[in-house]
Amino acid sequence: MTEMNKQWLLKSRPVGEPTLDNWEYVETPVPTPGEGEMLLKTIYMSLDPYMRGRMNESKSYAASAEIGQPMSGTGVSVVVSSNNPKFKEGDYVVSHTLWQSHSVSNGQGVMKVDPSNAPISTGVGILGMPGLTAYVGLLDIGQPKEGETVVVSAASGAVGSIVGQIAKIKGCRVIGVAGSEDKCRYVVDELGMDECLNYKDDDFEAQLEKACPNGVDVYFENVGGRVFDAVFPLMNDFARIPLCGRIANYNMTGDPDGPNKLPAFMGTMLVKRIMLRGFISFDHYDRFPDVVRDLGNWIRTGEVKYKEDIVQGIENAPEAFLGLLKGKNFGKLLVQVSEDPTRD
Amino acid sequence: MTEMNKQWLLKSRPVGEPTLDNWEYVETPVPTPGEGEMLLKTIYMSLDPYMRGRMNESKSYAASAEIGQPMSGTGVSVVVSSNNPKFKEGDYVVSHTLWQSHSVSNGQGVMKVDPSNAPISTGVGILGMPGLTAYVGLLDIGQPKEGETVVVSAASGAVGSIVGQIAKIKGCRVIGVAGSEDKCRYVVDELGMDECLNYKDDDFEAQLEKACPNGVDVYFENVGGRVFDAVFPLMNDFARIPLCGRIANYNMTGDPDGPNKLPAFMGTMLVKRIMLRGFISFDHYDRFPDVVRDLGNWIRTGEVKYKEDIVQGIENAPEAFLGLLKGKNFGKLLVQVSEDPTRD
Repeated sequence: MTEMNKQWLLKSRPVGEPTLDNWEYVETPVPTPGEGEMLLKTIYMSLDPYMRGRMNESKSYAASAEIGQPMSGTGVSVVVSSNNPKFKEGDYVVSHTLWQSHSVSNGQGVMKVDPSNAPISTGVGILGMPGLTAYVGLLDIGQPKEGETVVVSAASGAVGSIVGQIAKIKGCRVIGVAGSEDKCRYVVDELGMDECLNYKDDDFEAQLEKACPNGVDVYFENVGGRVFDAVFPLMNDFARIPLCGRIANYNMTGDPDGPNKLPAFMGTMLVKRIMLRGFISFDHYDRFPDVVRDLGNWIRTGEVKYKEDIVQGIENAPEAFLGLLKGKNFGKLLVQVSEDPTRD
Repeated sequence: MTEMNKQWLLKSRPVGEPTLDNWEYVETPVPTPGEGEMLLKTIYMSLDPYMRGRMNESKSYAASAEIGQPMSGTGVSVVVSSNNPKFKEGDYVVSHTLWQSHSVSNGQGVMKVDPSNAPISTGVGILGMPGLTAYVGLLDIGQPKEGETVVVSAASGAVGSIVGQIAKIKGCRVIGVAGSEDKCRYVVDELGMDECLNYKDDDFEAQLEKACPNGVDVYFENVGGRVFDAVFPLMNDFARIPLCGRIANYNMTGDPDGPNKLPAFMGTMLVKRIMLRGFISFDHYDRFPDVVRDLGNWIRTGEVKYKEDIVQGIENAPEAFLGLLKGKNFGKLLVQVSEDPTRD
């Protein structure tokens, strides 16, 4: 039986919450690489919240996925065959693979992954974009100082788990926020954050205020919604808000009436001299060597831990993605598309 | 007739727009300075938008004015008599004089003003807090680069006029926004900004879009309201918003339903990687020497001009202040409380 390229195409654009009907599964012939190109076979496909934005037609920070085309996405692949002198058969790489089992690349924007450094799956996780996002957002934008209080939302997730652990290394008091008791236990017991609160608790706001007796100096914002509304009033003078996502708001249509309307928000930003800065990891590729060096070291010394939530089979990608938007994953969400020869 | 201390006391806290009833005029004996203290006679009293915040009980960035006490405020005074070795009779100083004709000071936070450097009234204007606000907000926070587009609201005002002129010196395209044709003409003809738009025009939003064909890189935010709503959608990727005031919103009670609700706002902040930072000039006193040097030079070379709107007599302070909140002043608003011996 000839091997086929398993693909998930975007079939329609969601209004509000996506459903399984928004994608279509197809199998097409495996493409043939041309001159200077190589054929990649996806091993791990990364599922990330930003992909929700790609499903919209409206302007986001990257081009929308096109109807009838494979969904955007990066993955860790093995080079099956190469006409590109920079890559050879058997190399492991991270690239823009899309939601499919095979892809052809001319090598542009492709990064090699060294399996002797760390498990190759980390190339789309702690040593990839989530690691870069955490590192740049916390250190370059948040600039936490020893003794300050840092609040991290989605604290057991791909980005938040790294943010919280780096903040601990920098000597901060770190309060994680997550969506279940299990996740909170993991955040405190395994990742070493000082406390972790469940934002689904009725008295979450009161718990948060109690957990931050000295206010909040850095809020790493990647969820929005109720967590933002609870943290914002606790911000100290000269606080910083690195803003890399608003997952709770991604499926919103229209303008909801939250407690934080813009004029009141801006008043607080001024009075407390708060700095808010939106950022996207791909603007900060120059920091990748630092990420790989520092996070690589911290993984080896055990100061930083990571957790992966690996879903088997590309067939299950859409369902796993819908779960991600609802916080069902526990750890960095990956889809195993083909066997990982480096793993026992 | 014994000279009396003319004072404006805060009588009641306004709900929404202040009225003349919120203040009470009294005359009390001129105070006597104690050991280490000096008696100051106010020449120019500064009226500034931030004073609206001091009238509220709610937390602002400075303590509220107390009911029954003189309103907060800074002014340029002459030293009438001094028991403080650092100051002598006849010195001109800037200090926290409050809304009154005489004050006693122990010298803390008092800055001398050199009448040979520039007119002493500039001590509460272009060489004082408004100059510092413009300088720090534009240069340190806005960081404009040559060729970028800068939009300045309240462009004929104390702060905006300086922001726009510094931005021109730095090689930017500068679009001013003001509230009358007269002000706009002054902003373009006298201050040299590239264009100036009247935000009261029906088609202001369309005019602004046309005036910014390359988008907006720095928006110096000190008015809020309709101007902010028009500028924000034009912001470029990596734009900066120094935030030093929201005069259009100061009298708001409750949360108005503007077109920019918070979730949509945050989405744009993220997608465009915008930086918003609230700041208050008094956190940046360390930059005062640079302000006095650079703005002093630019005034002497004629590269920077300033305009004062001087109201005669402390009796008229409340009415002038109400006019300031409505944009009735044209230039830096001062109240002349007593004769200026340095002026012809």
